[in-house]
Amino acid sequence: MLSPEIARVPQSRPFLAATARFASGVDTPRAYLERCLDALDSWEPKIGAFVHTNIDGARAAADASTARWRAGKPLSAIDGMPIGVKDIIETVDMATEMGSPLFAGWRSGRDSAAVAALREAGAVILGKTVTTEFAATEPRGTRNPWDSARTPGGSSSGSAAAVAAGLVSAALGTQVMGSIVRPASYCGCVGFKPSVGAINRGGSHDYLSQSCMGVLAATLEDAWQVASEIAVRAGGDPGYPGLAGPVRAPSAAKPQRLVFLETAGWRAASEEAKQALQDAMAQLADAGIEIVTRQTNPQVAAVEEAILDARPLSTRINAWESRWPLNTYRERDAGKLSGAMLDRLTQAEAMDLESYRADLAERVRVRSLYNNLAAPYDACITLAAPAAAPVGLSSTGNPVFAVPFSLLGVPAISLPMLQEQGLPLGLQVTGFNNKDAEIWAVAAWLETTLGGQDACG
Amino acid sequence: MLSPEIARVPQSRPFLAATARFASGVDTPRAYLERCLDALDSWEPKIGAFVHTNIDGARAAADASTARWRAGKPLSAIDGMPIGVKDIIETVDMATEMGSPLFAGWRSGRDSAAVAALREAGAVILGKTVTTEFAATEPRGTRNPWDSARTPGGSSSGSAAAVAAGLVSAALGTQVMGSIVRPASYCGCVGFKPSVGAINRGGSHDYLSQSCMGVLAATLEDAWQVASEIAVRAGGDPGYPGLAGPVRAPSAAKPQRLVFLETAGWRAASEEAKQALQDAMAQLADAGIEIVTRQTNPQVAAVEEAILDARPLSTRINAWESRWPLNTYRERDAGKLSGAMLDRLTQAEAMDLESYRADLAERVRVRSLYNNLAAPYDACITLAAPAAAPVGLSSTGNPVFAVPFSLLGVPAISLPMLQEQGLPLGLQVTGFNNKDAEIWAVAAWLETTLGGQDACG
Repeated sequence: MLSPEIARVPQSRPFLAATARFASGVDTPRAYLERCLDALDSWEPKIGAFVHTNIDGARAAADASTARWRAGKPLSAIDGMPIGVKDIIETVDMATEMGSPLFAGWRSGRDSAAVAALREAGAVILGKTVTTEFAATEPRGTRNPWDSARTPGGSSSGSAAAVAAGLVSAALGTQVMGSIVRPASYCGCVGFKPSVGAINRGGSHDYLSQSCMGVLAATLEDAWQVASEIAVRAGGDPGYPGLAGPVRAPSAAKPQRLVFLETAGWRAASEEAKQALQDAMAQLADAGIEIVTRQTNPQVAAVEEAILDARPLSTRINAWESRWPLNTYRERDAGKLSGAMLDRLTQAEAMDLESYRADLAERVRVRSLYNNLAAPYDACITLAAPAAAPVGLSSTGNPVFAVPFSLLGVPAISLPMLQEQGLPLGLQVTGFNNKDAEIWAVAAWLETTLGGQDACG
Repeated sequence: MLSPEIARVPQSRPFLAATARFASGVDTPRAYLERCLDALDSWEPKIGAFVHTNIDGARAAADASTARWRAGKPLSAIDGMPIGVKDIIETVDMATEMGSPLFAGWRSGRDSAAVAALREAGAVILGKTVTTEFAATEPRGTRNPWDSARTPGGSSSGSAAAVAAGLVSAALGTQVMGSIVRPASYCGCVGFKPSVGAINRGGSHDYLSQSCMGVLAATLEDAWQVASEIAVRAGGDPGYPGLAGPVRAPSAAKPQRLVFLETAGWRAASEEAKQALQDAMAQLADAGIEIVTRQTNPQVAAVEEAILDARPLSTRINAWESRWPLNTYRERDAGKLSGAMLDRLTQAEAMDLESYRADLAERVRVRSLYNNLAAPYDACITLAAPAAAPVGLSSTGNPVFAVPFSLLGVPAISLPMLQEQGLPLGLQVTGFNNKDAEIWAVAAWLETTLGGQDACG
C-alpha cells in the first residue's frame, strides 16, 4: 500500500491530470484520497503539517465524489480534490485555532466563504494546516519535507509542507507579507497569491488591508482551478470584482517583454540563488524575450526605488491595522501572546491615525508607479526567496522578495523551478492588479519553456 | 428619584453639555448613569431596546470615570458617557446575538474595535441594543418611545429607541440601506452615518461593502465626539483613512449652495412630510442660501436619475455579498432563519459573479455622478423618511430616503427637526466622501438656524 519512496522524497500530487482516470473509472476520488492518507501516515509524524484532520469526513466526501464521477456528474473540475485549510480559516467540522493558545479548541460553527465554496464544488476538506501565530511570525513547529531541519516558511507553513509532500493536492493560504510565496518557494510547490481582494476572505481571520487569500498547489493548473472555483461561488472580498479570468485555466502565453525586479531582496540573496535566476533569464533572452532592468530602464529604476522600503512600510500598515484585535487579546491573557505579537501591539499603540494615513498615501504612490509597467510589459520576474529554506525552526525565513507584491496588491506566483543547495527555490512571476489570468498565462509559458517539472522533483 | 414625566415623554440625554458639571464636581458620571438607569427602569418594559445590559459593569466604569473627572484627568471628552451597542457588534462582557436564534447566547470573548476604543476613551458601555435579524429586515419587537404602537425603525432599532428615551446618550449603529438614518428619524434623535469605511468595523458582523458603522445620539456634538474618539483610537476599516475631521466637533458653517434631492422617496412621502421639508427650505432660501433642484439644474437631474434605482441595486449587491455566511447558517439550521433571510439567500444563489461585477460598475458610475456635486455645492438635503414611524411592529419601515446615500458611501446625518403627525421626522443632510467634518458643520448650522431644539422635545 505504502510505496517505500513516498517516505523519502517529497512528491506533490497533481489533481486535474488525475481526473481523466476518474471519468473513465480507472481511478476514483476515494482511492486518490487513500493515497493522500498513506502519505499522511508516512509524512505527518516528520513534518507536522496539520493541526486537525477530519478523515472520516474526508472519506465520506470522497465517496460522494466517487459516485458523482461515476454518474458523469462531477460538481466541478475539482470535485474530489483533497484540500488543506490554513488554520486561520473557519471550518464547520474542525476548530480554528489560529496558531494561538488563545483559540485552542475554538469552533466558529461555520465554514468560511472559501471553504463553503470548495465544498459546493465537491472538494474534500482533509484538515486544518499549521499557521504561525495569527498568521504572523511566531512558528508552530512544522518542518520542511525536503529537510526536516529546515523551516517550511510561514505563515502558511502547514499548507506548503502538506502540498509538497502530497498529503493534499492543494491548500488554502493567506499572504500579507510573504506567507504564500515564501513557503511555496521553500517547499517546492506552486504558490498563487491573487490580486488583493480576489478571493472572499469571509471567515478568515486576517483583516489586514494587504492580506489576500491564495492557493498552494501541486501544479499551476490546480492552483488556478481552486482559486477560480471559489471565486465563481463566493466571489472576492465584498466590494471587489473577484478573481479576474476564466473558470478553467487560460492557455500559456509567451511574453514579449518582462521586467526583472531586484527588490530589496537582491542584496540578501545567495550567489547561487542569483545565478539560478540569471541562468533562467538568459534562457528567456535566448527565446527572444526582452528583459528590462533598473540598469536599462528609468521607469523600472523608479519602481525599484519605490519598493525598497516595502517591508517597513508594510510592517507599519499591518501594525496599525492589528491594534485591534490584539489589544483585546492582551486584555484577555497577555501570557498567551508571543513576544513578537506584544511588540507589534506596542508599535501599533505608538502610531496614530495621521501617520497611518501617510503610510496609506505612500502605498497608493508606489502602486501607481508600479502600475505604469502594465502597459509596456507582460509581467515581472524575480526570486521568490533569497535562498533555499534556512536551517532552523525558530524563524520562518525572510519574506523580502514577496513583500513588495503584497504591498502592491498584485498577483504573484512562485514556480518551483530553481534550486539552491540542491533544494527548492521559487521563480516568482508578478503581474498587475486584476490581471490574474494574464500573469498565470505567462507563468505557464515560463514553466514549460524553462523546465516543465519541479527542479527537485 | 424618578421624575414622573420621564415615563411619559421621551427625552434624549445630551452628554457633552453635562461634562462641565463633572469638571466642577456638581455632577458625576456615576450620578449621570443612575439617571440613565432610572430611565431604563421606566422605559425598558415599554420599548424593549436592550437585549442585554451589564449594569454592574457600567456602574464600575462610571465610578472609575467619576474618579478621573475628580482628578481632572478624564480620558477623553466622552469619559463617562453611557453608550449602547447594537447587538451585531462584539462585546467581551455580553453575548452578541445578532437578532438571530442561531447566535443565542453566543460570546466572542472580545470587544469589537469600536467598543475597545470607546472603553479606552472612558465610555460606559451599558448594554447591547436590539437589532433586526443580522441587521436586515426581520424586526425583534422594539417599540417606538413616542408611540409604542409604532416601529422604532431598523435595523438599529434598540439603539435609536434607547437614545431617544435617554437610556443612554449615544449608541452604535450600522447602516447598509437605511439602518441609522431611518430609526433616527422615527425616534427623534440624531443619526450620523459617516463615509463608508470611516469607523473600524472589526468585530461587527456586517461584512457588506456598503455597510458602515455610525452613531445615534442625543445631539450632533455627541454624535461627532463618539465617532471621532473611536476613529483616533481604532481608525477606519483596514485600508481606509478613517473619519475625516478634527477630534472635537468643527464649528457650524453656513452653506452657500445646497442641493435638494427628491430621491425615489419623494413619491412615497406624505404631503405633510413634504410640506415640512419645503417649509424648512423656504426658511433657508430666506436666509440667502441657494437651493438647486432637478428642475433647475441638469447635473442634479442626472444624479436624481442615477439614484432612482438605488434600492434594487443595493439589494442585489447586498444579496450577493450575503451569500456567505447565510449559506452556512441555512446549513446549520434553516428553521432559525426568517423567510426574508432565506429569500435573500435564494436571490443570492440565483446571481453570478458577472452580474455582481456589473452592479459594482453601476455603483461606481452613480458615485462618480454624485461626486460631481462636491465642487459646486456644500451639501444635499432631503427627508430622512417618507413620514413619521408607521404603526405596527411587523416592519421597520421604508428606507427609501436613506438607501441612495448608503449606495453612494457618503456621510449622511438625520436631524430631529421636522414633524409629521405630531411625531418626529428627520431632515437629512448628506455630504461627500471623506468630507464628514464639512457636512457636520453644515448640519450644525441648519440645526441652529431652523430650530435649535428637537421638534418634538
